[in-house]
Amino acid sequence: MTITDIQAASQKLRDNKLFELFVVAIIILSALLIGAKTYPIPQAVMQAVTWLDVGITVIFLFEIVVRFIAEPNKRRFFHNGWNVFDTLVVVVSLVPIEDSEMALVGRLVRIFRVLRMVSIIPELRTLLNSLLRALPQLGYVLLLMFIIFYIYAAVGATFFASINPDLWGDISISLLTLFRVMTFEDWTDVMYETMGTYPLSWIYYLTFIFLTAFAFLNMVIGIVVNVLEDEHARERAEQEEAEGKITLEDLQAEIRELKQLIREQQKNNTP
Amino acid sequence: MTITDIQAASQKLRDNKLFELFVVAIIILSALLIGAKTYPIPQAVMQAVTWLDVGITVIFLFEIVVRFIAEPNKRRFFHNGWNVFDTLVVVVSLVPIEDSEMALVGRLVRIFRVLRMVSIIPELRTLLNSLLRALPQLGYVLLLMFIIFYIYAAVGATFFASINPDLWGDISISLLTLFRVMTFEDWTDVMYETMGTYPLSWIYYLTFIFLTAFAFLNMVIGIVVNVLEDEHARERAEQEEAEGKITLEDLQAEIRELKQLIREQQKNNTP
Amino acid sequence: MTITDIQAASQKLRDNKLFELFVVAIIILSALLIGAKTYPIPQAVMQAVTWLDVGITVIFLFEIVVRFIAEPNKRRFFHNGWNVFDTLVVVVSLVPIEDSEMALVGRLVRIFRVLRMVSIIPELRTLLNSLLRALPQLGYVLLLMFIIFYIYAAVGATFFASINPDLWGDISISLLTLFRVMTFEDWTDVMYETMGTYPLSWIYYLTFIFLTAFAFLNMVIGIVVNVLEDEHARERAEQEEAEGKITLEDLQAEIRELKQLIREQQKNNTP
Amino acid sequence: MTITDIQAASQKLRDNKLFELFVVAIIILSALLIGAKTYPIPQAVMQAVTWLDVGITVIFLFEIVVRFIAEPNKRRFFHNGWNVFDTLVVVVSLVPIEDSEMALVGRLVRIFRVLRMVSIIPELRTLLNSLLRALPQLGYVLLLMFIIFYIYAAVGATFFASINPDLWGDISISLLTLFRVMTFEDWTDVMYETMGTYPLSWIYYLTFIFLTAFAFLNMVIGIVVNVLEDEHARERAEQEEAEGKITLEDLQAEIRELKQLIREQQKNNTP
Repeated sequence: MTITDIQAASQKLRDNKLFELFVVAIIILSALLIGAKTYPIPQAVMQAVTWLDVGITVIFLFEIVVRFIAEPNKRRFFHNGWNVFDTLVVVVSLVPIEDSEMALVGRLVRIFRVLRMVSIIPELRTLLNSLLRALPQLGYVLLLMFIIFYIYAAVGATFFASINPDLWGDISISLLTLFRVMTFEDWTDVMYETMGTYPLSWIYYLTFIFLTAFAFLNMVIGIVVNVLEDEHARERAEQEEAEGKITLEDLQAEIRELKQLIREQQKNNTP
Repeated sequence: MTITDIQAASQKLRDNKLFELFVVAIIILSALLIGAKTYPIPQAVMQAVTWLDVGITVIFLFEIVVRFIAEPNKRRFFHNGWNVFDTLVVVVSLVPIEDSEMALVGRLVRIFRVLRMVSIIPELRTLLNSLLRALPQLGYVLLLMFIIFYIYAAVGATFFASINPDLWGDISISLLTLFRVMTFEDWTDVMYETMGTYPLSWIYYLTFIFLTAFAFLNMVIGIVVNVLEDEHARERAEQEEAEGKITLEDLQAEIRELKQLIREQQKNNTP
Repeated sequence: MTITDIQAASQKLRDNKLFELFVVAIIILSALLIGAKTYPIPQAVMQAVTWLDVGITVIFLFEIVVRFIAEPNKRRFFHNGWNVFDTLVVVVSLVPIEDSEMALVGRLVRIFRVLRMVSIIPELRTLLNSLLRALPQLGYVLLLMFIIFYIYAAVGATFFASINPDLWGDISISLLTLFRVMTFEDWTDVMYETMGTYPLSWIYYLTFIFLTAFAFLNMVIGIVVNVLEDEHARERAEQEEAEGKITLEDLQAEIRELKQLIREQQKNNTP
Repeated sequence: MTITDIQAASQKLRDNKLFELFVVAIIILSALLIGAKTYPIPQAVMQAVTWLDVGITVIFLFEIVVRFIAEPNKRRFFHNGWNVFDTLVVVVSLVPIEDSEMALVGRLVRIFRVLRMVSIIPELRTLLNSLLRALPQLGYVLLLMFIIFYIYAAVGATFFASINPDLWGDISISLLTLFRVMTFEDWTDVMYETMGTYPLSWIYYLTFIFLTAFAFLNMVIGIVVNVLEDEHARERAEQEEAEGKITLEDLQAEIRELKQLIREQQKNNTP
């Protein structure tokens, strides 16, 4: 059996619909196992869970190896972010863990296996990609919002730190408090406290809420408009392709032919 | 009186506007009765309420029977989900209830009678259908959101269970707690508690809020864009139907006729 | 001085820009007065405030009389809802009030004078009218939402009344509690309480939140789509009016004239 | 070295990409310094911070002077709001501060230096300008909303002041309480309190929430529609410019030329 045979067999297995369903089932089983582990488990079942865990890791390892072998260009395999992610998750799962500190990291990695769901279902991959593609559009709005947050946090830490150090102690605590104010979570308690010392501090909170709400609104509208524009551009291009046969340009050409015909007629008649 | 006569009479009654209004009035009466029963009722009135209840059940039974007889194809009657729903509600109302456990179920079924309002008013039926039709569009976004929830719940149950078992005891309690965080309901209390043990756990909450808010935003925009696209497509189709008489294609045809005419003229002249 | 002279003079005064500004100024003064009265006022100033109040009432009465006289068709005056509102507010202000019960109503009517701002500024009137015009579009969505609220309130009053009568005592209290849940206001406290008795009652709250949020979302999108459609229709109509001179129909007519010309040419040539 | 030489050198420096990056770096350093000052700082470091602060002020002063010299028309320099802002921030930073009252103002001015980030990054300046341009569109909606707030606050201060002076004492406190109700922040606590005295006061809160939510919704939709309309208008104008060569008018002109040709032909043939 040559290497080419193995590669062909791997490709066949990788593209097999049943194999894909089997892997999805294993990912769901792995997710359920992660959930089950958060409940108190009797010692007897614990043993079974540990074995299941090993089994899942082995199957994941096998699937990654199959996908790696099936890839004709081995270098391009790791250019795909999802492949890197899958390999990392499997490799870290293989490392035997002894002490309790690392055990938590091991459990964390096992939890991230659920994300393999996204890497294996094409629709979810597309959705996530489109979400990520929308992020840069928000770049400057997020920067502006951060500047607003930073200025208000600096003002808050300067004036209110002595009133309640738990909320305004330094600039990073103030940033967290302002995020809380933005989500309207008990923001009046925060305000009433500082109004005891600075009766006009309601201006600080109201302007902050207006600015962030306004910026957020603009962000939403920005995305909507961008999405709609993209859709329009795509639609128009499709239309032009579909209906492209008869345009005003075509009619102009035909009319010009007509003119040519009549001119020739005139030449024939006049002599 | 033959069966056909009964069917014709039933159809006439079913399509009678007054009969429909009468049924709507009975449904409203039934809804008011349900509301009235949640207040303390004197024993004397209770008797009247019970009789009214029986009367409403009988009328509903009669209406369903009329609709069933009026239907020419008896099999198709139960292909309509609303008919099945109406029949079920009426049939369960007929079952005599003795013990208190079942009494609650009986009251629940009577409450669901209010939903008959939706089945009888065409505009509401249309609205509900359009709402249901929008659901599949959201399918993958909801799946992605559930994966995010599940991963965060697993992480929460792993790390925070010992801090507050009431909020993070197992994965299902954690899912509920995360839903609470998403609605911003006292989420800072939850956060400050875990920050006592893990000072960096604010990262967990802030990333979660950003991810779910971002996914939700995308969901809203997704629907808006879909709805707008559908509307556009419908509009364009209507326009083409209405204005379809004169298109660029028609003009092209006319110009070609012209060319033909001139060519014939040339032939006539040249010999 | 005849009646016609008085009417003409009234019309002139009513349409005077300065008079309009003066009335706006009086409305603002009246609004400030209402605000001032909510602060503790020394007895001496109180006297001045009372006289100012009388002065404002007299000016408002004068302005209404001027507008009534200026109107050529006295009957149509009261067909305008704003005129009826203005007259009512002024007339009720004139009634002398003695006992404290009525004094509150008198203050309430004076507060409603601020709404005259809307009746006098055309832009605000237009805005309010457009808001009111959007309401019927929401009719059926609001009805569907009320049915959902009613069913959940009936279920809540049936099952949870014994747990906390202050929140679920009868159907109207339950409706208020559900509205509170919809605004996410301490809804987890309400939920955790009923989960003590019915551990699965979280299903009740989560489905309710999803249904109402989904219906609300649909409502928003419904309005957006309607507004956009109306705008589009208006735009298109305006375009057609502006550019209406040259359409495909015009071109067709010209081409037909051409054909006619050539046919005549043929006739002239052939004999 | 003449004045013109200095101006030319200044322009060259101002337009230098490296110089711009250097200024951005200094602004970021200044922002970090502001953040660092909110933490407790050892006396030794404090000295360094003070010197850094002086250095930053000097660099900012130098940059403003360079920009001022580079400007050919000195008067127009202060017509640009950002230049005025930058100059003010730098000049106030130069004033030596002694007493603690002024020290706070000095720190505040240093915080506002972070806003220089907006004045120096063109994309942020554009974004802020577009946000400010959207404000007047909201003018009348905000006025209507304020009128609603004012009326409800007057009613609240009139009826509820005796129940809880901390929330309804006078009209300005009532306005703040209503803003809190609009953000759904513990609004049920406010409501339940007044419902003890006026059992029907829930109508007050529910109508207020509906009115402000409805007005806010309209505001959002208003902006969306405006933004979309502007985009459409811009797009259409661009299209017409790009495709402007062949329009229906052009075709009409060509057909008319054709007619002219045929008519001439007829004249030539008929004599």
